[in-house]
Amino acid sequence: MPGMQTPSENEIIKKYGVSNTTARKVLSELESLGYATRIKGKGTFVRSRYVDKTVTRILGFSNNMRQSGFVPSTKLLHTKLIKSGYSMTISGRFYAIKGPVLQIHRLRLANNVPIMLEWRFISLKLCPGIEKMNLQTSLYDIYEKNYDLKLTQVDQMLSVLPNLNPNILNLFELNENTPSFLLTGATFCGKGTILEMEESIFRGDKYSFSVKAT
Amino acid sequence: MPGMQTPSENEIIKKYGVSNTTARKVLSELESLGYATRIKGKGTFVRSRYVDKTVTRILGFSNNMRQSGFVPSTKLLHTKLIKSGYSMTISGRFYAIKGPVLQIHRLRLANNVPIMLEWRFISLKLCPGIEKMNLQTSLYDIYEKNYDLKLTQVDQMLSVLPNLNPNILNLFELNENTPSFLLTGATFCGKGTILEMEESIFRGDKYSFSVKAT
Repeated sequence: MPGMQTPSENEIIKKYGVSNTTARKVLSELESLGYATRIKGKGTFVRSRYVDKTVTRILGFSNNMRQSGFVPSTKLLHTKLIKSGYSMTISGRFYAIKGPVLQIHRLRLANNVPIMLEWRFISLKLCPGIEKMNLQTSLYDIYEKNYDLKLTQVDQMLSVLPNLNPNILNLFELNENTPSFLLTGATFCGKGTILEMEESIFRGDKYSFSVKAT
Repeated sequence: MPGMQTPSENEIIKKYGVSNTTARKVLSELESLGYATRIKGKGTFVRSRYVDKTVTRILGFSNNMRQSGFVPSTKLLHTKLIKSGYSMTISGRFYAIKGPVLQIHRLRLANNVPIMLEWRFISLKLCPGIEKMNLQTSLYDIYEKNYDLKLTQVDQMLSVLPNLNPNILNLFELNENTPSFLLTGATFCGKGTILEMEESIFRGDKYSFSVKAT
């Protein structure tokens, strides 16, 4: 499993009855294929091939990608005006944005690989005219720069989405089902004021989430 | 998807051409079968059938279950002394506990349903003699009550485990593959002192994780 230590050179020799040349070769192949990382003086560890997202900080996709060394890009798939507003439950709690709400459906890519699919529901009361802006960039940047809104809290829930439907597999350019993360969240700007809600699918073969508890 | 609103009575009538009696019956059946929750004056929402774990607080399995209204229990599967210590990487960072380390393999249940499988690696330097204690209870309680240790931080990483092997399916009493969460974590008691590390599998059909970002 990701993070675990692989057998050492000596353990491979003992366990499989191979020469030390072979054992060394196996470990360096695992590393060069990207399955493992060697840490000097510590051993070889199974690598998570994932993009890591720290979920305890408010950090948008674009900035998270840049910090991870990837070039982010965004494909706008669809927008829709929802006059009546939008509501959902997150971890059993009820969240609502009064209408009108702009729904934005986007595919997010890292180094041109599609890795995340999102539906965002944005308060048009707080962001009037946002539908006319360039929506292929960071929404968090738009909120802060164009509307002078300060994001104060994001309430999120992560679950496992066992099956991706054919349409989503197609967008992700995947040939077979890939269990993924479903993230639902509500972003606040100020106490009790919800700026946007999201439902996002993070590819399970690409993402891990890191969380510090205190 | 969990959290999303279902069509209203009127929308069901319009879309499927059924009577209002039928539409009402459908919604109340969804609720009574546990697939949805009605929130008065708000609508009907897809329920996550999950146990929710708040990952930003240090909260053990037993207490999390009790707070969620379940009766927790624990089945000790295996213990093992690892003289040389234990190490792993979490979100690319290297974590190690010097030996001796006690490995504990346990199945955790809620209302007698197995929902989590864990491997814990505990520093015997910090917890000498813990192997002789009752290990079918909360380890966090043992650390705090018997060793007077204060847990200060947990560094965790969540990824999707797409396939459970037959042995694990068997322990979970599942008939078919159930994509799940893999959590790897290191628990600190004081700055830089790792008390234990864990690798745990949380059933994807039972668990969701909630996270607040600020």
